[in-house]
Amino acid sequence: MKRTLLAAALCCALPVLATPGRSTQEIIDTAPADAWRTPNPANLLYMQLDKGTVVFELAPDFAPEHVAQVKLLAQQHFWDGLSVYRVQDNYVAQFGDPNAEDKTKAKPLPPESKALPAEFTRPLAGLAFTALPDKDGWAKQVGFADGFAVANDDKNAWLTHCYGVLGSGRDNPPDSSNGAELYVVIGQSPRYLDRNITLVGRVVHGMELLSSLPRGTNNNAGYAGYYNSPAEYTPIKNIRLGSEVPESERLALQIMKTDSPAFAEMVESRRNRSGDWFVRTAGYTDVCNISVPSRVQR
Amino acid sequence: MKRTLLAAALCCALPVLATPGRSTQEIIDTAPADAWRTPNPANLLYMQLDKGTVVFELAPDFAPEHVAQVKLLAQQHFWDGLSVYRVQDNYVAQFGDPNAEDKTKAKPLPPESKALPAEFTRPLAGLAFTALPDKDGWAKQVGFADGFAVANDDKNAWLTHCYGVLGSGRDNPPDSSNGAELYVVIGQSPRYLDRNITLVGRVVHGMELLSSLPRGTNNNAGYAGYYNSPAEYTPIKNIRLGSEVPESERLALQIMKTDSPAFAEMVESRRNRSGDWFVRTAGYTDVCNISVPSRVQR
Repeated sequence: MKRTLLAAALCCALPVLATPGRSTQEIIDTAPADAWRTPNPANLLYMQLDKGTVVFELAPDFAPEHVAQVKLLAQQHFWDGLSVYRVQDNYVAQFGDPNAEDKTKAKPLPPESKALPAEFTRPLAGLAFTALPDKDGWAKQVGFADGFAVANDDKNAWLTHCYGVLGSGRDNPPDSSNGAELYVVIGQSPRYLDRNITLVGRVVHGMELLSSLPRGTNNNAGYAGYYNSPAEYTPIKNIRLGSEVPESERLALQIMKTDSPAFAEMVESRRNRSGDWFVRTAGYTDVCNISVPSRVQR
Repeated sequence: MKRTLLAAALCCALPVLATPGRSTQEIIDTAPADAWRTPNPANLLYMQLDKGTVVFELAPDFAPEHVAQVKLLAQQHFWDGLSVYRVQDNYVAQFGDPNAEDKTKAKPLPPESKALPAEFTRPLAGLAFTALPDKDGWAKQVGFADGFAVANDDKNAWLTHCYGVLGSGRDNPPDSSNGAELYVVIGQSPRYLDRNITLVGRVVHGMELLSSLPRGTNNNAGYAGYYNSPAEYTPIKNIRLGSEVPESERLALQIMKTDSPAFAEMVESRRNRSGDWFVRTAGYTDVCNISVPSRVQR
């Protein structure tokens, strides 16, 4: 009988490893200190739910105006007391003001809020981009930039819709998002959204608090995943900018540098799996199959 | 203000559609009767959890010996009172006997159980395969066969590790699975598992009951996602073969035929999204971004 089913399929150490590759977990565990960076707390969002803390890292290099608005909203405590009001299976968890659509009930944005442009792409030039050699069906090239999964077409670059990415919902006009109604990808990467909506960051801690929420069953309006009543919402206690969280309450987060040798070795360990469990290695990876490691220093 | 955020990104109808494409939901809603098939109840598994019913369609064309064993286990009520004992975020929910590894506690398999071979691939010849034109990074060709996402290398074919697929855990020897410890993919498709483990079917109803389970936090043994105590397990009330569920309790399930014109049009609607929301269509789809429609006739 066996319990170590799928053992080598995990991100984790195997007791017996075939040469030459080291396991992903071993690479992470032994990565030198300079393979890690401490994210700037001014670029982190701490979201407090009843069951714990979700931390997002924002991406000002990709969506500077959206990120400025998100920071303003956090500083103004806009989301406090609002909720996760939509969770569609294999798609997104969406949070903010459940009454955003109803002008008579919507929570007003801070008066300093500015109209936001569509920030779907940015120039590739000037971006510290590390390419993957692996082909991608959705874009000319994919890789990573400072912890974020990125695609490009030689001229422009954009964040990709991988698991855990944070985006800003919009209406039909491309410039119609206000930075207040955010969504997180909780399923198979919906890459068809790439370059259609502004991505503002990604989850670096506590993802499971969003991905395990009950799915909404109200699909009547043609939009799936909404809850039927406010009683089903997940309340947001508060969302704070990391730099405004008391230091004693901050997590000592570190994120692996995606331009480090350790990360390159880790990607290779995903592309060609080591260990006695695998009978075939793929020799390939999808950019969304690479989870950029983060850790909390204790 | 807006609530219809991400509206067109859904699988669902938009009030205003641009020509020429019809929306995915419109295609599904208007698909003719002959675009649907009623699965053979002898190939369905009904899993009763406290919160509802999960239904799996088994794939005897791909894993005949495993499917025979799974049917035997269901007929013998093997899983009744067992549990979902592992849920790893962005990976799998695994169920069966939490004590499978402990010979002194493990629930004995029925004496009729046979040793199972590795059923990682089958010949492409003889399979009613509908290819996608879209390139795939993991396999020479991908497409569908009778409701299942499939890859092939011109000679052999195999089920792909897309969201909702059902597999049979194994230990290091390729022929070490016993059909009793099963897992369901609940995140980004782990295609690197393809041809390394036997897939036996997929979820066709109630997926959200598995994907929204709390994630296990016991990673101590190097295997992530296990629960720390039996109190965290999700009990399985029972698992029955569809043909042994009383007719009054069966769901009138239908699954879209993946060789039908309606399905082809639906795939095209995912590849090139219609509606006023999209500013760019991908002109591409990943096989795992296509959810084969199923419905319950009322």
